[in-house]
Amino acid sequence: MPSDRPAQTIAVIGGTGHLGAAIAWRLARTGYKVIVGSRDGAAAMAKAGELGHGIAGMPNAEAAALGNIVFVTVPFAAQAVTLADIRPHLAGKLVVDTTVPLMPPKVARVQLPAEGSAAVRAAGLLGEGVELVSSFHNVAAHKLAQDIDVGCDVLVFGDSKAARSQVVALADAMGLRGIHGGALANSAAAEAMTSLLIFINKTYQADGAGIRITGELNQAD
Amino acid sequence: MPSDRPAQTIAVIGGTGHLGAAIAWRLARTGYKVIVGSRDGAAAMAKAGELGHGIAGMPNAEAAALGNIVFVTVPFAAQAVTLADIRPHLAGKLVVDTTVPLMPPKVARVQLPAEGSAAVRAAGLLGEGVELVSSFHNVAAHKLAQDIDVGCDVLVFGDSKAARSQVVALADAMGLRGIHGGALANSAAAEAMTSLLIFINKTYQADGAGIRITGELNQAD
Repeated sequence: MPSDRPAQTIAVIGGTGHLGAAIAWRLARTGYKVIVGSRDGAAAMAKAGELGHGIAGMPNAEAAALGNIVFVTVPFAAQAVTLADIRPHLAGKLVVDTTVPLMPPKVARVQLPAEGSAAVRAAGLLGEGVELVSSFHNVAAHKLAQDIDVGCDVLVFGDSKAARSQVVALADAMGLRGIHGGALANSAAAEAMTSLLIFINKTYQADGAGIRITGELNQAD
Repeated sequence: MPSDRPAQTIAVIGGTGHLGAAIAWRLARTGYKVIVGSRDGAAAMAKAGELGHGIAGMPNAEAAALGNIVFVTVPFAAQAVTLADIRPHLAGKLVVDTTVPLMPPKVARVQLPAEGSAAVRAAGLLGEGVELVSSFHNVAAHKLAQDIDVGCDVLVFGDSKAARSQVVALADAMGLRGIHGGALANSAAAEAMTSLLIFINKTYQADGAGIRITGELNQAD
């Protein structure tokens, strides 16, 4: 273990899924200590072994308890039950929700939840005492899982600028470009964009379309 | 007037505003016959003279009556009254709504209307018999108004693929890249993105941030 390895442990809840595994792999390669969680502890251990880089695997709640930073990468349909499961272990922690409100079978159609976004829904489910940020809605998992320039941006939303800044820095460390997207409510834009990208992938036979912010961006104030 | 000038007349309702004037100017330069409309006919005429390229100016309803294609480029607060004003003149026409639901003073915060998007709201206000498309939500007007490569994409939404295709082709003719974005409901993604871009412009002191779809896109099927 290199001595400059970041001290934080990052738990990736739902880390056996495509996006979670890709995030776990990128973070571990960057030097973070990473735990993948799953409802099924054995599946988490198997995925961790497959991903390598010292990643550990365990049930979601145990992973959440050990993580200083907790990514939540589960399907929309599993968001509520998963957050209820790990909520006792999140007090004071930075939580990065990646949930996109896809409503099968019409996943290429924008269908935002009544709360306005999955992120605002997560805030309601988690309550006070958690530093909630949403991000990683628009990065194709299979691109993130390869050692390539994914070529798209990672928009970061949250009502705490300090919490957002941590995730922007994490994205940058992962070889991506993190961009402040503003309040948690603004997550609706990136969540809706995912359905759009699914539509574009299908319509234009594209392999993992993403979005990039154009125009010259200066240092965030 | 060159003989290959497109036969269609395009009305730009609210064409004295920044976005409308920029769209009118780009379309006129491309060879279209363009009319800018305004609540105030004299203001429309003045703007038309300023824009040149043979653009005419008149009250909104007259412009809508003469246009084969009708762009609606008014603020969200004026959407309902404007659509009511021009609706009698839209039967069977292609209508391109550019309305973004910005809710001053918090224009950098995503605040989608109860209908889900300004485009779906427009569909409800216009009723049957109109080919409604929404587009041009994310292009900075001051960039569009210059003879430069704006560097961002124009997402096009509508429930009719044929109507969408016409607007994709118009965007391409204007020197932009039009991209099919799917159903009218998907307009929420681009409308929400506008508040995000306003936030990004402020946070990163950017001059007209936009979005670009990344990844290789093939011919739309």
